[in-house]
Amino acid sequence: MSTTAAKPLPPGSTIGILGGGQLGRMSALAAARLGYRCHIYAPEADSPGMQVAAAHTVAAYEDAAALARFAAAVDVVTFEFENVPAATLAALEPLAPCRPGVQVLRVCQDRLEEKAFLERAGVPVAPWRAVHTEADLAAAVAAIGLPAVLKTTRLGYDGRGQAVLRRPEDLAPAFARLSPRPLILEAFVPFVAEVSAIAARGVDGTLAVYDAVENRHRDHILDLSFAPARLAPATAEAARRHAGQVAEALGLVGLLALEMFVLPDGSLLGNEIAPRPHNSGHWTMDACLASQFEQHVRAVAGLPLADPARHHDAVMKNLVGPEGLALWPQLVRTPGVAPHLYGKAEARPGRKLGHANRILPLGSLATMDDSVALAGL
Amino acid sequence: MSTTAAKPLPPGSTIGILGGGQLGRMSALAAARLGYRCHIYAPEADSPGMQVAAAHTVAAYEDAAALARFAAAVDVVTFEFENVPAATLAALEPLAPCRPGVQVLRVCQDRLEEKAFLERAGVPVAPWRAVHTEADLAAAVAAIGLPAVLKTTRLGYDGRGQAVLRRPEDLAPAFARLSPRPLILEAFVPFVAEVSAIAARGVDGTLAVYDAVENRHRDHILDLSFAPARLAPATAEAARRHAGQVAEALGLVGLLALEMFVLPDGSLLGNEIAPRPHNSGHWTMDACLASQFEQHVRAVAGLPLADPARHHDAVMKNLVGPEGLALWPQLVRTPGVAPHLYGKAEARPGRKLGHANRILPLGSLATMDDSVALAGL
Repeated sequence: MSTTAAKPLPPGSTIGILGGGQLGRMSALAAARLGYRCHIYAPEADSPGMQVAAAHTVAAYEDAAALARFAAAVDVVTFEFENVPAATLAALEPLAPCRPGVQVLRVCQDRLEEKAFLERAGVPVAPWRAVHTEADLAAAVAAIGLPAVLKTTRLGYDGRGQAVLRRPEDLAPAFARLSPRPLILEAFVPFVAEVSAIAARGVDGTLAVYDAVENRHRDHILDLSFAPARLAPATAEAARRHAGQVAEALGLVGLLALEMFVLPDGSLLGNEIAPRPHNSGHWTMDACLASQFEQHVRAVAGLPLADPARHHDAVMKNLVGPEGLALWPQLVRTPGVAPHLYGKAEARPGRKLGHANRILPLGSLATMDDSVALAGL
Repeated sequence: MSTTAAKPLPPGSTIGILGGGQLGRMSALAAARLGYRCHIYAPEADSPGMQVAAAHTVAAYEDAAALARFAAAVDVVTFEFENVPAATLAALEPLAPCRPGVQVLRVCQDRLEEKAFLERAGVPVAPWRAVHTEADLAAAVAAIGLPAVLKTTRLGYDGRGQAVLRRPEDLAPAFARLSPRPLILEAFVPFVAEVSAIAARGVDGTLAVYDAVENRHRDHILDLSFAPARLAPATAEAARRHAGQVAEALGLVGLLALEMFVLPDGSLLGNEIAPRPHNSGHWTMDACLASQFEQHVRAVAGLPLADPARHHDAVMKNLVGPEGLALWPQLVRTPGVAPHLYGKAEARPGRKLGHANRILPLGSLATMDDSVALAGL
C-alpha cells in the first residue's frame, strides 16, 4: 500500500462514477454529504444519478475520447455496477485511480472466475462445472446430480440467464436456450435462507463489515431484507467473516456484497459477489449512522471507514414496478418508515423504483413475527 | 385550504428553490431521496445547491424574465433563506405555488413586523421600540432601560447589524453606525440559555415539531446545538408549543425555526423566526428518521409530514472557516460522529463550511457533562 494512495481526497474533489442508476445516485448523495462533487458517466441521458451530480457525461462505455475527458475531469473513478465493460476500466486505469480496480471487475463479471475465486478465498461454494457443450452438460449433471441450475457465466442478474434443471429432459431445451454463451452448472442448493453481508475495505486495508441480513425474493427480484438476519450467532459471524475474506482476497478498495445460502445445518455457501453498493444494504441508510453509500465513498476517497454498527433493526421493502409505486402514498404516511425513490421517469414492470426502510428497536427483530415486522410495508 | 392544494406533488416533480447555499443543498438532497428533482435559482454560479440539483438558473433575484422561465420549469417554489427579496416571491406567486408564501417573508424580513407578529401569535417577547431618529432612541432607552440592543430591522444575521448599548455614551456612536436604516431597540435579555424549536406545517395544516434544542454561539455564529435542550419539561414543551403557534399564525406551508431566550425563572421570550430549515436543526439529519430538510420538502410538496421523534440525543458542532475545516480529519475518524460538508470552494473565516453530529443514546444527554458530550467534536 503506497503512502500516496492512502492520502484522502480533499473536500471539493470530484468522484467519477461509471453508471447512472440508483446505486450511483445514492452514492452521489452520500458523496455530497461528505463535501465531494460527483461526475456521472453513463450511456443514458437523464439517468437517476445525473439528477444529483455536479457534472455528467452521456457517452458509450467504448468511447475512448469521452473516457479520456472524464478521467481528466475527476480525481478518482468508481462504478455502480459490475457489468461496466472491463475494457472501459482498463482504459481509465492509466489515467486516474480506479477504485475498485479492473481486477475486481474481471472476477465478478464471470461466474466461473467468481466460483473459483470464492473457493481460493476460503468461502465454500456449491459444486459447479463449466459447460461449453451438451456433452459437458451431461457430464456435469452426472457429477453434480439433479436438480441443478444452468446459468450463463456473464451478465446475468435478477434471475435472468438461468434455468433450473429438474429432470433429464430439461437439459436439451435449457442448453438450447442459453447457449452458445459460456455456461456454468451449479448444484441446486436446498437452502433454508438467503443472506448477504456487506464489507468495505479502505485504501489502508481496514475492513468495515455490516451485519448480515436475510433476503427474500419475488419473481427473482429482491423483495425484502431483514436486518439483522435471524441466524445462530456463529452463522451470522461466519457470514460477515466471509464477506471480509472476499474483500481482502480481492485487494478491494471499495465495498462489496457477498450473497450466501444458509443450509439446514447452519453452514454457508457463497453464491455471488457484487463489488459495489447492493440492494440488500439499503437498510443501512436509516439504521446505521453511516450508510453503505457513505462507506463506499469513504473507501473510494481514501477516508477512514465509518463504524458499521447498526443502531436499529430494520426491514427493507423494494418498490418494484407500478405495483411498488402504488405503495408510495401509504409509505409516506407511516411513522417509522423512511421512503426512498430513485427519480426514474417510467414505472415499468420489474423495474426497481425505490425502497422503504422500516426501523425497529435494536434487537427486537429476532423474536418478531413476520406479520409484525412487515406491518405498514 | 383547497383540496387541490392538498394534493401531493407526484414523484418526479420539480421543486424550485430560491437560494443555493447549504440549506438549499441539503433540501435538494432530501428531495432527491423522495424522488423529486430540484431546480436551484441563485445569483451565484456553482453554488453548493447547484452541485446536487437536476437543474439550475444563475440570475439576479430581480431578473423578471429568468424568474418567469424558472416558474414555468418547476411545480412548486420554496426558498432557503428569508432575505430573498419579497418582490421576487411576489413576482413568482401568480406563476407557481410558492410555499411558504410572500406574506411569511414580509413578516420575517423586518424585525418590527416580526416582534409585533410574535406578540399577536401569543409568544412573549422582550420589550422593544422602533427607532428612526436619535430622539426615538433616547425615548426608547428611557422606556426600556440599559443595557439594550440596537439592531437594523432588516438583513441582519449572525450578529451583523447590531450594537449593544451599555452606557448612555454608547447611544450616539451606535446610532451613527447603524442609521439611516430603520432600527429597533430591544431590551437586553438576561437569559440563561438560547433555545430553538423547529416546526413544520403541511398543506393540510398538520404540525410536526421537533424537540427544542439549546444553542451556543461563538463570535455571534452558532457553534453548538444540544438536542434535546436540558430544560424543565414544562419549558421544553412551551418552546415546542411556541414554534407551532408561530407556524399556525403565519399560515405557514413549510418549516420554520423559532429562536427563544430562556430566563432564569424558566420562562421563554421569542427572539427570531427563520421560515426555512435552520442551522439549529442540522442534528435531525442523524438523530431522527426524517430530517428537517425532508420535513421541509414534505411540507412544500404537499406530502404528509413525517414523525419528528428523535431516536438519539445529539450534539451538533458547526465547522466555521479554516479553523472548522481543520477539525475534518479528526471528525471523519471518530465513531458515533457523522460529518457533513457543503461543497464550498473557499474556506473563508466566518463561513459555515459544514457541521458534525455526534449521536448519543436516547435520554443520555440530560445528565451528561459538557466535556463528555463534546468528546471528539
